[in-house]
Amino acid sequence: MSVLVFGHKSPDTDTVVSAIAVADLKSKLGVAAKPVALGKLNPETEFVLGKFGLTAPEVVESVAGQKVIVVDTTDLTQLPDDIAKAEVLGVVDHHKLGSLTTPAPLEMWVWPVGCTGTIVKAMYDFFKVEVPANIAGALLCAILSDTVIFKSPTCTDADKKACEELAAICGATDLQALGMEMFKVKSAVDGVPARELVFRDYKDFDMSGKKVGIGQLEVVDLAILDAHRAGLAEEIIKIKAEKGNHSVFLLLTDIIKEGSLMLIATDDATVVEKAFGTKADKELWLAGVLSRKKDVVPPFEKAFA
Amino acid sequence: MSVLVFGHKSPDTDTVVSAIAVADLKSKLGVAAKPVALGKLNPETEFVLGKFGLTAPEVVESVAGQKVIVVDTTDLTQLPDDIAKAEVLGVVDHHKLGSLTTPAPLEMWVWPVGCTGTIVKAMYDFFKVEVPANIAGALLCAILSDTVIFKSPTCTDADKKACEELAAICGATDLQALGMEMFKVKSAVDGVPARELVFRDYKDFDMSGKKVGIGQLEVVDLAILDAHRAGLAEEIIKIKAEKGNHSVFLLLTDIIKEGSLMLIATDDATVVEKAFGTKADKELWLAGVLSRKKDVVPPFEKAFA
Repeated sequence: MSVLVFGHKSPDTDTVVSAIAVADLKSKLGVAAKPVALGKLNPETEFVLGKFGLTAPEVVESVAGQKVIVVDTTDLTQLPDDIAKAEVLGVVDHHKLGSLTTPAPLEMWVWPVGCTGTIVKAMYDFFKVEVPANIAGALLCAILSDTVIFKSPTCTDADKKACEELAAICGATDLQALGMEMFKVKSAVDGVPARELVFRDYKDFDMSGKKVGIGQLEVVDLAILDAHRAGLAEEIIKIKAEKGNHSVFLLLTDIIKEGSLMLIATDDATVVEKAFGTKADKELWLAGVLSRKKDVVPPFEKAFA
Repeated sequence: MSVLVFGHKSPDTDTVVSAIAVADLKSKLGVAAKPVALGKLNPETEFVLGKFGLTAPEVVESVAGQKVIVVDTTDLTQLPDDIAKAEVLGVVDHHKLGSLTTPAPLEMWVWPVGCTGTIVKAMYDFFKVEVPANIAGALLCAILSDTVIFKSPTCTDADKKACEELAAICGATDLQALGMEMFKVKSAVDGVPARELVFRDYKDFDMSGKKVGIGQLEVVDLAILDAHRAGLAEEIIKIKAEKGNHSVFLLLTDIIKEGSLMLIATDDATVVEKAFGTKADKELWLAGVLSRKKDVVPPFEKAFA
C-alpha cells in the first residue's frame, strides 16, 4: 500500500505541490507514495497544476490505518480527524511546531523558510535525485505564491536560491511575470460566493482562550474587490456568530500596493487599536502588511494576552 | 547572548555529545552557541569527554528568556520546567515526536536512526563544515553506546556509515574495542547506591492512563550485578510506591549475551505475560532484548491498551 502524502485542510498551492513532489521523491527513493489532498483545490492551485501538466491529487477525508507523510503543517486542527489512527512516517514543514505527536520515531525536515517547497527542493538535492521539470515549475509557483513574489517578510535567501535553481530546471525566465500570472488567477473572485472567499484561506487561532479567525484574500489590485467588500463584511459578522468566535478578521491584501485592508468583526474593537495603534471597528488599511503569519498574528497575540 | 544547546534530563552520552557538536557546528555557521547539560554527567559520558579532551558542559536548570536548540528529545517531561519561556530555534532528534510545541517557525532535523549523533554528523556534511577530530571521536562513542556496538534493533545503515566516517576522522581503528572500553566503564557499579543505578537511565511512560517506569542498566556481563540484584529489586518496589506508579521495570542488559534480565515491580503481573508470553512476577530473562525503545516499550503499550 502506498504511503499517503498530504498537507493541510483548505489546501493551498504549497500544500498540494509539496505533497506531489515529496511523493515523487519518496517513490524514486524506493518508498511507494501517493499525493492526496484534504479538500477541493483552489483556482490558483488548479491553474498551476494545469500549467505544468500535473494531475490533481485525489481528495480524501479519512487516513485511519494508512502510513502517511504530512507536509506544510504539524497542527492537529489542520489534519484529518483520524490522524491519530495513521502511522506518521515523516513531516516536511515551515511553520511553528504544532500539536502533532507520534508513538514512533519519524523523519522530519522543518526549516524556518517562506515555503515548504523550498525544503522539498533541498531534499531532492540532499538525496541526489533530479527534480522533474514539471514538478520544478510547480514548486517554483508554490514559492512565488507563499512569498508573494519575494515581497513577504517570511521570504528568506533560501527561498530565492531555490527559485533560481527551479527556474533553471523548468526553463522559466521571468519570475515576476509568472508570479503575476498566478496572482491574477488568484484574484478572480467574480461569481464566487462571499462565504467561499472568506474560507479560501482561513485559520482559527486560540489567543489567550479567545477564538480568533483570520482569513486572507490576496489580489493584484484591491479595486477587484470593490463590488464584494460590503458582502464580505456582512459575511464575517455571520461567520463570527455561527462559530462563536471572539473575532473574525479578513485581510484583503493588495500585492502591488503592498498592504492589506483588514475587515473587522469583533466583540471588542480595542484589540485592533492595541495591535496596530489605530482605532477602527469596521475596517483598517495596514500599509506594508502582507503576511498573516509574521505581520498580523503576532500583534494580535500580544493584544489578546 | 549565546544560544544554549542541550538534550534531555538524566543526560546520557548521546545527549551531551550531540549538544557539544551542534553548538560547535552552529558557532562555525555564525550563530554563537554554547552546550549545557540538564544534570550531572554519568560515568560513561565523563569517560568519553575525558578520552577526547572535551570540556564537560555547565549544568543548568532554568532556560527562561534564552534562545535554545534542543537535541535528543521533543518530550516536555524531559526538558526544563520553564522551557515554554525559552525561544526554541531548533531541534535535532531521533525519537518519536513528543509534546514540545513552539509559537514560531523553527529548524528541525529528525531522523528515525539509532543515535542523534548520526544526524549531527550528516548536518556537518550538509553545511560542508569539517568535524573536528575530538568531536568526531565523541560522536563515534555516542553512536556505539546508543546502538550497543551496532547490536541494537534501533541501529540503521546510516548509523554504521556515520561511524565509519567518524572513525576515519578521529583515527579510531577498532570500533569493537572502543565500544567495549566504554561499556566497561558503564558497567562499573560497585559502591554506587541502588537508587542511583535505577535512575541512571530511567523513563516514565503513560500507558493507557497508567504510569509505567522503565529503567535500563547495560553491562558487559550480568554477573557484575550479582551482588546488586536483591538491592535493585527492593529499590524498584520502593520507587514504585513513592511515585505512585502502576509498575516499575528495570532491565539489566547483558550486551555480550544479548539479552536482558527484567526486574519487576507491578500492581498486576499479568501485563508481563501479556507483553512477553511468559508468567513472571519478580524477574524474567528476555533473550535478544537490548532496546527499551524497540523491544520493551511497544509490547508493554499493547499489554496496557
